[in-house]
Amino acid sequence: MSVLPGTDVISFARGVPSPDMFPLEELAEFARRAIQQDGRVALNYGPPSGYAPLREWIARRHDVGPERVLVTPGSLIGLNFVVRLLVANGDRALVEAPTYDRMLHVLGDRGADVVAVPRTDAGLDLDRLAALAGGRPRPRFLYVLPTFHNPTGRTLSRAAREELVELVVEHELLVFEDDPYGLVRIEGEPEPLLHELLRERGADELCVFASSFSKTVAPGLRVGYLVLPEELAGGVELLATRTYVSPPILPQAQLYAFLDAGRLTPHLAHLGSFLGERRNALLEVLEDRLAGIAAWTRPEGGYFLWLELPDPLDAVELEARARGAGVAFVPGPAFFADGSGHGTARLSFSYPSPDEIRVGATRLADLVCDSVESGG
Amino acid sequence: MSVLPGTDVISFARGVPSPDMFPLEELAEFARRAIQQDGRVALNYGPPSGYAPLREWIARRHDVGPERVLVTPGSLIGLNFVVRLLVANGDRALVEAPTYDRMLHVLGDRGADVVAVPRTDAGLDLDRLAALAGGRPRPRFLYVLPTFHNPTGRTLSRAAREELVELVVEHELLVFEDDPYGLVRIEGEPEPLLHELLRERGADELCVFASSFSKTVAPGLRVGYLVLPEELAGGVELLATRTYVSPPILPQAQLYAFLDAGRLTPHLAHLGSFLGERRNALLEVLEDRLAGIAAWTRPEGGYFLWLELPDPLDAVELEARARGAGVAFVPGPAFFADGSGHGTARLSFSYPSPDEIRVGATRLADLVCDSVESGG
Repeated sequence: MSVLPGTDVISFARGVPSPDMFPLEELAEFARRAIQQDGRVALNYGPPSGYAPLREWIARRHDVGPERVLVTPGSLIGLNFVVRLLVANGDRALVEAPTYDRMLHVLGDRGADVVAVPRTDAGLDLDRLAALAGGRPRPRFLYVLPTFHNPTGRTLSRAAREELVELVVEHELLVFEDDPYGLVRIEGEPEPLLHELLRERGADELCVFASSFSKTVAPGLRVGYLVLPEELAGGVELLATRTYVSPPILPQAQLYAFLDAGRLTPHLAHLGSFLGERRNALLEVLEDRLAGIAAWTRPEGGYFLWLELPDPLDAVELEARARGAGVAFVPGPAFFADGSGHGTARLSFSYPSPDEIRVGATRLADLVCDSVESGG
Repeated sequence: MSVLPGTDVISFARGVPSPDMFPLEELAEFARRAIQQDGRVALNYGPPSGYAPLREWIARRHDVGPERVLVTPGSLIGLNFVVRLLVANGDRALVEAPTYDRMLHVLGDRGADVVAVPRTDAGLDLDRLAALAGGRPRPRFLYVLPTFHNPTGRTLSRAAREELVELVVEHELLVFEDDPYGLVRIEGEPEPLLHELLRERGADELCVFASSFSKTVAPGLRVGYLVLPEELAGGVELLATRTYVSPPILPQAQLYAFLDAGRLTPHLAHLGSFLGERRNALLEVLEDRLAGIAAWTRPEGGYFLWLELPDPLDAVELEARARGAGVAFVPGPAFFADGSGHGTARLSFSYPSPDEIRVGATRLADLVCDSVESGG
């Protein structure tokens, strides 16, 4: 570990994949092949909904008609479109606490009345949710990340999903399910999507589903997608047309060539072991050094782990010192609509190598222990 | 021409390149090479401003610092960002009459007070522009397409540019120069960009410049860009971050590989002769069949020609009949903020083959002649 001088900052901050995760040679070959095989289509303007074969591939995967799928340049712009369509200034939107920070910015820029529902290891606070769903003003939707949640890495159990679906059906509350990490699994068995559970109940129209290939294949492709209720698909598609005519068709065709050749499944298996090694490196240091002092989640997949600091440590204050000590993370308040969560931090284990993770986590643990000993 | 049965619609409607214009084999090779050479960067998230080497290439081309360049997924989303940043509901924006229809939608969606300045073969109506620029409410900008203008194909002369620049400097009016077609030249010599003329006068801050590789290389890459005054660059970049984290880096890297290998210049020469053949096919039929009946522009480049129909022909009414006769175009009113221009039509010659153009233009000329004979 002599390659890591003490002044180099090891970052657990951004949810960015390591370049070592990319199937480089395969993507290079499929990038060429996509142009040779369908370049006359892939290099031109396309439908606002995206490259047709990819749209159909996604539609089959989610068992919906392709007219309900919109392929977007990354999923964040899809979240933007849905918010623009559904939320006017002052409209209420429900989010989890904590939740994806960029979605908080999107809602804030839109002037939404953002109300948070606490989410813990046990799932969402359903009493709070029921009161909000049944109260006034009527919320436009609940934005939720059921699996390998950003920022905590938590996953809703089957029972928690069933209860949540029960509640939203009762109140006819639209669920905005964001699932960029669901296929990035290290261990365990997948639970059904909320989208699937709602469809089983004939309440398909109560779900907007969003996902992406940024965390599974490569963010540089910028391929995200929405699965929309029929009555919203036209409105979102019009926003897409007005915003960019058509999304980038070429990288969608290049991704499709990779998917169509059956390369996703073996790649996901590789990703699971790749990220598992990194998660385990992080967990080992935390268990070694912080057991009984701090608490943390044990994610079965995704990119993130959530750290709960010992009282009265403040993550914002700690982060400033951590940078100086050569380690970075995102303090919890970024993920709370009300800026609370000062005792928490998000650690991403997707970018640094296992050796870097061990060094970085040790630096962080040292800092936490020193702070505790000196009384915060 | 027996390959074209009478029922097939030949379209002069959309400003879409023919797939025969794409340098397919070259792009296939550079697509692969970009991943092999820089895939670890190109496949990941990148800066919101785009792939750094491409941004620097564009900056050198326009002789500005790279911090003023924002590479976007197509240029329309860049226009959207600038409008979002500069125009609040009710703010005044000046456009040409006619102008790019999608920009009218962007301004309309934003609630702008859109005021048009007539543009003819002689250039912009500078008296009208001076009154608006010096009047109240103060316009946020003038949106102008100086070269191979969409929809007319007209180009502002050197003198018209100088006069326009004089006027905007006097009134400190921001010029929003859109130049997607400038490099698509069939004949003639290029005039300086308004951006260049403004810089010569030390008024660089009075220009937002937009362009794209959609019309020169391939739209499926979705690579457009803005060159921004320093004081706007940060604000636009923040909008980009909030909208899509980073633009599609992979197709930007693939395009850069093509540019860096010096392939743009020979490709543009090829494009000029390719489009020249099509423009000439269109002009020949018009001259043969409609001389003395209708009038039209003679573009030196770009994708469009503007047709002025004989009185009292209505382009909207004609277009409905034209579809039935197997030819499509866009009636003029789409390009006027006030929906005027019923006696005009845009003909795009970039998509159909020369043979198709001859057949389509003959159908259109037949229809015009029939209408004139039958008294409209």
